[in-house]
Amino acid sequence: MDADADASHMRRAVELSLRSLGETSPNPNVGCVLVGPGGDVVGEGRTAPAGGPHAEVSALAEAGELARGATAYVTLEPCDHTGRTGPCTQALIAAGVARVVVAVRDPNPVAAGGAQTLRQAGIHVDEGVESEEAHDAMRGWLTAVGRGTPYVIWKFAATLDGRSAAADGTSKWITSPEARADVHRIRAGVDAIIAGIGTVLADDPQLTVRTPEGPAARQPLRVVVEGGSRTPPAAKILDGSAPTFVAAAPEGGRVDLHGMLRHLYDQGVRTALLEGGPTLAGAFLADGLVDRVVAYLAPKLLGAGPAALGAAGISTIAEALTLDVVDLAVIGPDVRLTATVKGA
Amino acid sequence: MDADADASHMRRAVELSLRSLGETSPNPNVGCVLVGPGGDVVGEGRTAPAGGPHAEVSALAEAGELARGATAYVTLEPCDHTGRTGPCTQALIAAGVARVVVAVRDPNPVAAGGAQTLRQAGIHVDEGVESEEAHDAMRGWLTAVGRGTPYVIWKFAATLDGRSAAADGTSKWITSPEARADVHRIRAGVDAIIAGIGTVLADDPQLTVRTPEGPAARQPLRVVVEGGSRTPPAAKILDGSAPTFVAAAPEGGRVDLHGMLRHLYDQGVRTALLEGGPTLAGAFLADGLVDRVVAYLAPKLLGAGPAALGAAGISTIAEALTLDVVDLAVIGPDVRLTATVKGA
Ligand SMILES: NC(=O)c1ccc[n+]([C@@H]2O[C@H](COP(=O)([O-])OP(=O)(O)OC[C@H]3O[C@@H](n4cnc5c(N)ncnc54)[C@H](OP(=O)(O)O)[C@@H]3O)[C@@H](O)[C@H]2O)c1
Ligand SMILES: NC(=O)c1ccc[n+]([C@@H]2O[C@H](COP(=O)([O-])OP(=O)(O)OC[C@H]3O[C@@H](n4cnc5c(N)ncnc54)[C@H](OP(=O)(O)O)[C@@H]3O)[C@@H](O)[C@H]2O)c1
Repeated sequence: MDADADASHMRRAVELSLRSLGETSPNPNVGCVLVGPGGDVVGEGRTAPAGGPHAEVSALAEAGELARGATAYVTLEPCDHTGRTGPCTQALIAAGVARVVVAVRDPNPVAAGGAQTLRQAGIHVDEGVESEEAHDAMRGWLTAVGRGTPYVIWKFAATLDGRSAAADGTSKWITSPEARADVHRIRAGVDAIIAGIGTVLADDPQLTVRTPEGPAARQPLRVVVEGGSRTPPAAKILDGSAPTFVAAAPEGGRVDLHGMLRHLYDQGVRTALLEGGPTLAGAFLADGLVDRVVAYLAPKLLGAGPAALGAAGISTIAEALTLDVVDLAVIGPDVRLTATVKGA
Repeated sequence: MDADADASHMRRAVELSLRSLGETSPNPNVGCVLVGPGGDVVGEGRTAPAGGPHAEVSALAEAGELARGATAYVTLEPCDHTGRTGPCTQALIAAGVARVVVAVRDPNPVAAGGAQTLRQAGIHVDEGVESEEAHDAMRGWLTAVGRGTPYVIWKFAATLDGRSAAADGTSKWITSPEARADVHRIRAGVDAIIAGIGTVLADDPQLTVRTPEGPAARQPLRVVVEGGSRTPPAAKILDGSAPTFVAAAPEGGRVDLHGMLRHLYDQGVRTALLEGGPTLAGAFLADGLVDRVVAYLAPKLLGAGPAALGAAGISTIAEALTLDVVDLAVIGPDVRLTATVKGA
């Protein structure tokens, strides 16, 4: 056992897992690398879209007979239950794999127990290799499965003085084409995009994933939150280019956001991107439903206009919602700040 | 002439000049390095507080007889006029310096002409070496002297959603001790600190430079802007710990901010730090009087409370004041974004 080689193969498995991000829900995005007794990589795999083979099965298929006596590096504990595919533990045992290295344990009680099953079959199992990297790559899924509601990322765009539009309501475009392209990259990694009816009525956004080559093949679920039936039938969000879910409260009422998220989880949504507006974002934050904040700050000043965030039930500085900055990047002329909600 | 050696000696001169930043007004912060014919550094100098020797004179004093035949690296064209000190050109000629390398030309018509005088005395003069670095180090002074008003840096602290206080008015402390210490470092580099009467009444700030070792020896001029005579006699800004200038308009009137800046320039102020509040900052921006913005953004969300910037005469997105991000830094838990105003 060479710790450096173990870490390096696992990092490759994490790399593979990231390529599947956003494509696998309700399954996790897992990566797998198979290394023969001589140290050669004999197979690689990553989770296919739901219903397709798991990472281990793809890697084993690639390796064929070379899997015998090999070591499997898997970012998540191999599943031990029969879902739409058979259990990965049985596939690894049948292929004659000698050792399995696992980065992160499966928190899902239904799928867990894989390491134990492998050990009982005489396979040597090591756990916790590069677990932080693997955890980062599967953060959304791990958080969601741990509590039964999707991992929520709130994205907003604002000027340096915190305005999301000018005094006359104009906001096209606060941020640069580069920042907007970056948003499409984030959209491509989530299962749902959530907006309030205020945003739908004001901007008529399409909320689909578009790249310079055109719309992406896989589109996240679009979710509109409204009190009453206010989404106009001609709204772009109902254009059929992606599935849409309208979460409407009875006239004059309020949607129970936590309940809505539980419902989305049951529909297979593990990660969701909240794209505003300020009112709905304030309600999500007030209910403690945001895990991560991605702020696109344009180096512009307005001095007037609607604020990027509406009432979130905070009235004094000691109650301010405190975040941890985890990334800071320059995107074209703009700045992207990514932060996690403390305790989330 | 070795271009690499020239650049490296000039960078050292720039380094020296930066140590004098904030101490030399109305004079520029200049650095000087003297290098003997053998390539050894024989003297170094930087501008002393106003009235004291210029950089060249200090470096010549250190070098003594070794200045003969040496090369002088100076970040700014040596002065050619007799102010409180004699002209540096004459000192360089008298010392027998063989060559003078200049980074930036003196934009001040009264002091300029130094390079020509040196050449007439048979000294070889090269210009434009590391001029960008030297320009950066003297940016405030160069801008101010070029137009007759101080270089103005607007500093503000806000949450990620652009609030400078919570809904109940509490704002202590939005940013971290690290960010506040950083503000004192910026204060130490300017000649004046400007605040509006609203801030004086709300926060009663002292607006002095304090370090962990106590108040700094040199204190910038404190400037309060008010309509009417509203500064309370007991305000900390009048505590005598630093000079204070109250710029008051006749009751109900508005201070002419451009006129005030010209007046400050005449008093020797070359760089000023505008520390708010939102109303005064909006007025400065509306009048095009801000050169640089330093934003301390705390990774906090409030969703309510006063905005970091008040009315600046901008009503539509196309008119937004656009900045160029020149620096992005993590300061403790906070983010510091520095940007320049386009065209300023
Ligand atoms: N800069 C950005 O990043 C960004 C992003 C998105 C939007 N925007 C801008 O934001 C503006 C629209 O924002 P907005 O604040 O008016 O609208 P919004 O946040 O998109 O939608 C608010 C609406 O959501 C509905 N809602 C249903 N259940 C709710 C609940 N539990 N809590 C809160 N709201 C609930 C309410 O609809 P009912 O009234 O039917 O009850 C409420 O009026 C537009 O101008 C848009 O351009 C900016
Ligand atoms: N977060 C931060 O970085 C920061 C920094 C500073 C202050 N603050 C907060 O800001 C709040 C105070 O801000 P504020 O906006 O009320 O006050 P302010 O901007 O400090 O002062 C505004 C006052 O300046 C006077 N003034 C004189 N000539 C003017 C001109 N030409 N244009 C504009 N104003 C002129 C006016 O006084 P008259 O009414 O007498 O005419 C006006 O009311 C406080 O709560 C403070 O804590 C925050």
